[in-house]
Amino acid sequence: MKAHIWVMPKLTVLDPQGKTIHNALSSLGYKTVQSVRQGKFFVLELEGLTRAEAETQVGKISRDVLANLVIEDFRFEIIE
Amino acid sequence: MKAHIWVMPKLTVLDPQGKTIHNALSSLGYKTVQSVRQGKFFVLELEGLTRAEAETQVGKISRDVLANLVIEDFRFEIIE
Repeated sequence: MKAHIWVMPKLTVLDPQGKTIHNALSSLGYKTVQSVRQGKFFVLELEGLTRAEAETQVGKISRDVLANLVIEDFRFEIIE
Repeated sequence: MKAHIWVMPKLTVLDPQGKTIHNALSSLGYKTVQSVRQGKFFVLELEGLTRAEAETQVGKISRDVLANLVIEDFRFEIIE
């Protein structure tokens, strides 16, 4: 069983990495790009859990370890 | 129109961030986590492109700017 987890800066938080990439794309001539936001993506491989247990555990891991909830939001999907 | 882009370390490449998180989770007692891989996730907002143009342009941006193809793979989806 796998979990896919997305951790993104909150929309109200500045995203300096995304801004830097946006500037780079503008200077390279990609004028159609209006905005860029950069986040993190995690793939966890899990063993010996039911789907419900996996959802509980991955929610807890996301909140406690992967995301800083002051400045980031997360979402996840359990696969297979 | 939006593009979602995932950039991940190739499977043959060491992923020190993923390994560090895996170790942290193990020491916190999450013994069911078998492996962790960390990548990057980008959301681009695009304007004034057809879907086909967007696919071409996002492919080029991913190859040229967002991913280092020596050590990373990417995939993307065009949304809306």
